[in-house]
Amino acid sequence: MQTLHNGKPAQSLPFEDRGWALGDALFETLLVRQGRAVWLDEHLQRLQQGCAQIQLDFPEKALRTEIDALLKSHPSERAVLRLCLSRDSLGLRGYAAATRTPHRYCQIVPVPEPVREYWEQGVRAFVAQTRLPEQGQLAGIKHTNRLPHVLARAERPQSDFSEGLMLSVSGLVIEGIASNCFIAKNEVLFTPLLDQAGVAGIARKKVIQSAQVAGVPVIERRLTMADITAADELFFCNSLIGLWPVRQLDCLSYSSFKLCQWVQRDLESVWYG
Amino acid sequence: MQTLHNGKPAQSLPFEDRGWALGDALFETLLVRQGRAVWLDEHLQRLQQGCAQIQLDFPEKALRTEIDALLKSHPSERAVLRLCLSRDSLGLRGYAAATRTPHRYCQIVPVPEPVREYWEQGVRAFVAQTRLPEQGQLAGIKHTNRLPHVLARAERPQSDFSEGLMLSVSGLVIEGIASNCFIAKNEVLFTPLLDQAGVAGIARKKVIQSAQVAGVPVIERRLTMADITAADELFFCNSLIGLWPVRQLDCLSYSSFKLCQWVQRDLESVWYG
Repeated sequence: MQTLHNGKPAQSLPFEDRGWALGDALFETLLVRQGRAVWLDEHLQRLQQGCAQIQLDFPEKALRTEIDALLKSHPSERAVLRLCLSRDSLGLRGYAAATRTPHRYCQIVPVPEPVREYWEQGVRAFVAQTRLPEQGQLAGIKHTNRLPHVLARAERPQSDFSEGLMLSVSGLVIEGIASNCFIAKNEVLFTPLLDQAGVAGIARKKVIQSAQVAGVPVIERRLTMADITAADELFFCNSLIGLWPVRQLDCLSYSSFKLCQWVQRDLESVWYG
Repeated sequence: MQTLHNGKPAQSLPFEDRGWALGDALFETLLVRQGRAVWLDEHLQRLQQGCAQIQLDFPEKALRTEIDALLKSHPSERAVLRLCLSRDSLGLRGYAAATRTPHRYCQIVPVPEPVREYWEQGVRAFVAQTRLPEQGQLAGIKHTNRLPHVLARAERPQSDFSEGLMLSVSGLVIEGIASNCFIAKNEVLFTPLLDQAGVAGIARKKVIQSAQVAGVPVIERRLTMADITAADELFFCNSLIGLWPVRQLDCLSYSSFKLCQWVQRDLESVWYG
């Protein structure tokens, strides 16, 4: 792992970082291919929304410069770029935010090629018992308050369960532990509305655009387990793994990957080839 | 600030710390007086509950040894001891917890004497618009996923508002931003049930015990703003500040501090004298 902290190579982070102390931080994970950060503008846009939401200035120019420098000095065929913006305590205790100027962290981490078998033949998944809290102000953005995801991931029954589906405390289907989710029903795609919980993923956005261009209607709305059970297809997506059709969700089986495959064909070059 | 990280003096923390990356961490803030950590056993007990909840081993013996060493080498009349347990990534990406063995951080921070005027004459407070999410698995324990508190604190209308009252997303009164809360009504104390949100404070526990010993009934139950409005008294408490009666909550005034003062008299020596 290579890190630039406020533009300078770093091996560790300061104790005054409130990302550590209070979860007062945002992050992004981007796919790097052939030395280029995929969907950089979209990731930065979400980061900017997060900054507005948690009252940090968005240091776009510095971030772009630092990302460029990091990618140039560590040219990778395939890697993950992790960005983090977090607030400094300026030596003060307590919850009061002493500054709007974030620490900037850009990290590059090696990553293996995504598992082609999952993309082609689908994955096995489980429904997590751990529920996502609902809080509209923190929905959609990618902050570091991720304990529910950590607990959900720890529920994984066996190593061949590749993803878990997460519901909110009120029983709505929200997302995968590390991904967004879609269902297909009667040639229409549905994906959970993320106004109370969940991360509005960049891959999710690209799937929606791709489907719409292909003439497949996409509807964002509240989904329950009844919708999941009645669906023709279920699939997960994120920026790093691409699209994973689900062949089994606990004891539920899906045999169609049709709409997922349409979108896969359109977006395949992002992850493969 | 002086820090022991796994028993050794440290100036910074590793990037592999998932407290920073994902909020996969717990903390405690203890009052230190005359070189002694106040209510240490109770704080460690809560930390142990948090460990069980987020699946970390509880390194009690090492923590106690390190706290002793830190307090001995930095003898303070009055200070804050901050403990943090966080999970290492072991170099792995994603949400999967690679270890149950936490990093141990013990930090000692100077702190001024609490404001006697707030203790005696009461404080002005506001009702925060930012709501606390409800998630039973994370309720009661003191984890670092504290963005809602950061946002609530940023709402403070003016500097003479000393605390903010936080409600949950479903409208229940839960706690102060950095404290727990009690109301008195007809000689009975009530404090919010913390089964879905909130931190089960150590000072809160001591207030309950103190009131019960004095023959004042204490009832933990769901409270709404209607209860706050109808209350004879409202007060906040935490380990560092002691007890703060509220004289004004937004446009609502309280003139009685009676039950709060009973408890204050019993516990006063913890913070003063």
